[in-house]
Amino acid sequence: MSHRSDQPATSAPGDASAGAPTHWVLTLSCPDRPGIVHAVSGLLAGLDGNITESQQFGDAGTGLFFMRVQVTAAAPRAELESGLRALEGEFGLAWTLDVVGRPVRTLVMGSTAAHCLNDLAFRQRSEALPVELVAVVSNHTVLEPLAQFYGIDFHHVPVTAATRAEAEARLLALVEELDVELVVLARYMQILSDDLCRALAGRVINIHHSFLPSFKGAKPYHQAHDRGVKLIGATAHYVTGDLDEGPIIEQDVERVDHTHGVEALVALGQDVERRALARAVRWHAEHRVLLDGHRTIVFR
Amino acid sequence: MSHRSDQPATSAPGDASAGAPTHWVLTLSCPDRPGIVHAVSGLLAGLDGNITESQQFGDAGTGLFFMRVQVTAAAPRAELESGLRALEGEFGLAWTLDVVGRPVRTLVMGSTAAHCLNDLAFRQRSEALPVELVAVVSNHTVLEPLAQFYGIDFHHVPVTAATRAEAEARLLALVEELDVELVVLARYMQILSDDLCRALAGRVINIHHSFLPSFKGAKPYHQAHDRGVKLIGATAHYVTGDLDEGPIIEQDVERVDHTHGVEALVALGQDVERRALARAVRWHAEHRVLLDGHRTIVFR
Amino acid sequence: MSHRSDQPATSAPGDASAGAPTHWVLTLSCPDRPGIVHAVSGLLAGLDGNITESQQFGDAGTGLFFMRVQVTAAAPRAELESGLRALEGEFGLAWTLDVVGRPVRTLVMGSTAAHCLNDLAFRQRSEALPVELVAVVSNHTVLEPLAQFYGIDFHHVPVTAATRAEAEARLLALVEELDVELVVLARYMQILSDDLCRALAGRVINIHHSFLPSFKGAKPYHQAHDRGVKLIGATAHYVTGDLDEGPIIEQDVERVDHTHGVEALVALGQDVERRALARAVRWHAEHRVLLDGHRTIVFR
Amino acid sequence: MSHRSDQPATSAPGDASAGAPTHWVLTLSCPDRPGIVHAVSGLLAGLDGNITESQQFGDAGTGLFFMRVQVTAAAPRAELESGLRALEGEFGLAWTLDVVGRPVRTLVMGSTAAHCLNDLAFRQRSEALPVELVAVVSNHTVLEPLAQFYGIDFHHVPVTAATRAEAEARLLALVEELDVELVVLARYMQILSDDLCRALAGRVINIHHSFLPSFKGAKPYHQAHDRGVKLIGATAHYVTGDLDEGPIIEQDVERVDHTHGVEALVALGQDVERRALARAVRWHAEHRVLLDGHRTIVFR
Repeated sequence: MSHRSDQPATSAPGDASAGAPTHWVLTLSCPDRPGIVHAVSGLLAGLDGNITESQQFGDAGTGLFFMRVQVTAAAPRAELESGLRALEGEFGLAWTLDVVGRPVRTLVMGSTAAHCLNDLAFRQRSEALPVELVAVVSNHTVLEPLAQFYGIDFHHVPVTAATRAEAEARLLALVEELDVELVVLARYMQILSDDLCRALAGRVINIHHSFLPSFKGAKPYHQAHDRGVKLIGATAHYVTGDLDEGPIIEQDVERVDHTHGVEALVALGQDVERRALARAVRWHAEHRVLLDGHRTIVFR
Repeated sequence: MSHRSDQPATSAPGDASAGAPTHWVLTLSCPDRPGIVHAVSGLLAGLDGNITESQQFGDAGTGLFFMRVQVTAAAPRAELESGLRALEGEFGLAWTLDVVGRPVRTLVMGSTAAHCLNDLAFRQRSEALPVELVAVVSNHTVLEPLAQFYGIDFHHVPVTAATRAEAEARLLALVEELDVELVVLARYMQILSDDLCRALAGRVINIHHSFLPSFKGAKPYHQAHDRGVKLIGATAHYVTGDLDEGPIIEQDVERVDHTHGVEALVALGQDVERRALARAVRWHAEHRVLLDGHRTIVFR
Repeated sequence: MSHRSDQPATSAPGDASAGAPTHWVLTLSCPDRPGIVHAVSGLLAGLDGNITESQQFGDAGTGLFFMRVQVTAAAPRAELESGLRALEGEFGLAWTLDVVGRPVRTLVMGSTAAHCLNDLAFRQRSEALPVELVAVVSNHTVLEPLAQFYGIDFHHVPVTAATRAEAEARLLALVEELDVELVVLARYMQILSDDLCRALAGRVINIHHSFLPSFKGAKPYHQAHDRGVKLIGATAHYVTGDLDEGPIIEQDVERVDHTHGVEALVALGQDVERRALARAVRWHAEHRVLLDGHRTIVFR
Repeated sequence: MSHRSDQPATSAPGDASAGAPTHWVLTLSCPDRPGIVHAVSGLLAGLDGNITESQQFGDAGTGLFFMRVQVTAAAPRAELESGLRALEGEFGLAWTLDVVGRPVRTLVMGSTAAHCLNDLAFRQRSEALPVELVAVVSNHTVLEPLAQFYGIDFHHVPVTAATRAEAEARLLALVEELDVELVVLARYMQILSDDLCRALAGRVINIHHSFLPSFKGAKPYHQAHDRGVKLIGATAHYVTGDLDEGPIIEQDVERVDHTHGVEALVALGQDVERRALARAVRWHAEHRVLLDGHRTIVFR
């Protein structure tokens, strides 16, 4: 996960000069060994920082240690950063530093289904979801009025087999140009190339339907209906090369029964999808999701 | 599903001679066409029956119609049965008739895990789960004290590759001898042969863990842990030839997170398993589950 | 519940003259006694109706019987209606008849919170929620752009202690003029008078937050936070004289913990509110909710 | 919460002399100010402790800071304790120290309902619930065979208005004599006196049914049925003077509908009760529950 916050920036949030303390969020991971917490808390205490929220987890399986701290401190960003850099060598520390609540610059990709975009845009506006929706990119035009209502720039980028490479280049250019930190695949019905997935690794969240058992192949809702499933679900996850198989951030289910036809299953599925996606986006934007190999640590 | 109730029996429940009305439960299915409900309700009205609960469902996909009726009536069983038989030809009706609340004779198969047996036995005793637990059959002996505490006969039937056929013959003999209506695989860790599955089709309920996505192969909980799933689930279903693939009766999930190690996942999984299994057994025993091809209709 | 459908109307849906069968939804209630189902199914069979969905329930406590039937029939509405009227006397039958899927004319009242209005409008447009949103009435103006985006007429009706009676008169006039069948109080933060509640009895659905235990008095979220509740919920119900005490249609909860401040509780509460309200409105609009004294029967 | 662990004990767990590190769980609370985490982590690092799990929370409302740490360390208990005592003055620290997984000595009180006792005893035996059930105390005798099956001493202590004081004295004597750390009211249908509640403050967990809205007075399930609630719930909480009003540890709900009679509601309610109680007992026994005024912090 790359965050704006670890880039030098003279006017970045958190640089308020005179005394008004900033509320920072710090995440870090490193091989697990004694002394990490003491070193980090020492750094923060030395800067007169007051820890307001902190969670740690040591994964006995991978031998990695993870930590997320929210701390109020009056020290300038540079001082925090140099303190953290000083720990990199000793502990093999990887870290990110951001200001609590800073809106993460987010690009939403969709096709025709509006439920996820509508939900994210509404929550951004009314529920303090800490994202800034800088663009909607779609291979169709049906989402344009919704984007306009929420004041989000809409980019129509049609995709055919022949133009896929060009379309992905256009997307990457937008990501660059708009300083996009997070791409959300909000029921975007096109496969992304492996190259694109790698280029944006850890910065793309996808949502897809999930069933117990899972159904391979086409028309999964038809298969689920034929099998008479009693639960339908959705999984939000980071995208890796294998589109539907990256580290899981959030999952949810809804109860169904024999009276639900395929259309009703799809409608209920959309409800679960937007709920799970909204949570995943919020947790990511609040720097609550850390990668632990193929798993996620979610410090809710 | 075969029920005691469709066998002629002079002293069967519901034959109380003088006037005291019996509370019947009737299930039926047939090709969907106008007039079925009228014909059935006419039969019941003609016997002065009072419908206390009724549910119907027409599956537009399979063209089948399903109905479950609870009715109080003073008429003797023979009269009800001959009325129903009269409708068989006209509507292609399949039906079952039983007395509401009659305990279904149930045999539980287990191996070493006790959670499902403990839960069923406790609910039978204290929550009016309408089953009579006539035997526990196990390839181990650890469940024997628990069975004894609940006053259930325990049969130790070890299974090896060499004795599988013999063990299954012993099971079938017990089913016959004890007049068993329902077999519950309560974490029984042996594969049943196709022949046995067919012989007991519609009368065996299995419970197994389920994940989104599902994990094939050995050690599914380890796979689920490695993938960082956020939900673990369980599926209760009728057994067909393909052990884990029969018609689903009930599913449930429990929320987990990165702090749950494999053992904790297993413990939570057991909680979901016993809950889903108990519901499936109750609904089956109350004749609320009807088969619709590969799906179930559950009239809860 | 009063439905458009029981009014004489020459061009009402379902009057299509020639042969194309209509999909009807019929609800009825009456004192429970033998023969009702037979009489109703006889009426429908006599009109060559084909029952596609049917649910019945006899409440042993109140002695009332409830039924909801979906039936396809080519007979004109008048014939169905006269058949039903013929049963009124014999069985003490109360009934409604409507066409499946006909949008119920709905007026939404709100104040400043947009989550419920946004959710209903979005579901109406994209999830086949069978309502027509004919007006938004608010004592504030913040909901106006949202209403406009969804093409719903917006009426600003300010309310002060001095103008309450006038405001309610204006509401009643709108209900009359726009032929409103259902009023949804979507976080409308004004108390309705007893007279208004009575005038619209059975046609007003309200949503409010709910806790276990419940908290009386002001600032319930603050109270819930102080008490450290682990669940917050919402209840959708019909409005009677006592605003928060009418028959319950739907309830739902969300899990919270000590890290949720009052603001976070409110945000999660809004999520539960819109979910529970959307379900209640759908079930009402699909004629799935029948009143049984102070309870509801919900034929989902 | 008083734990065995903060008492001097020469042979206490964790005193293993030679080198084999002990897995400790430490909880602490104090007024929130900079430097606490640093001081505690410094103490642990100085003892070569390795933190395996840690959670912190600062309550902005009460100004209190809470922390739970699991740490492996080879240092003897006395060294840890003296280090912690050294911090008491500086930070106003309150703390507890125990060995991870040490079974908490628990006394269960019940009347006639067996579901909670059965669930706790089963989980203790098969799911590593870290409690030792040292006694069952009941004003009835129906739970005696169940207690015997699980090998728990059963004490029949009848209660009448005349003998209440005597019965409570007997209970307190048992608590003393058996070194009881936790008392679980597992549907114990007698009111405890204020004096007893105070004497055992923070050491008694109660479970009771909960509804939205709540129902005061007798027969709450009848009231809930009359009102047509769609959810029934349960709340597990610490007992204070006001029996049903102490700090909430856990809550859960189950969905119900109009077909559930009062008996069915009670049966489902028991399911929710035992689930919520088992979680509360587990979290308490694992020292995951900290008191924050009238709220609990649950570090799950």
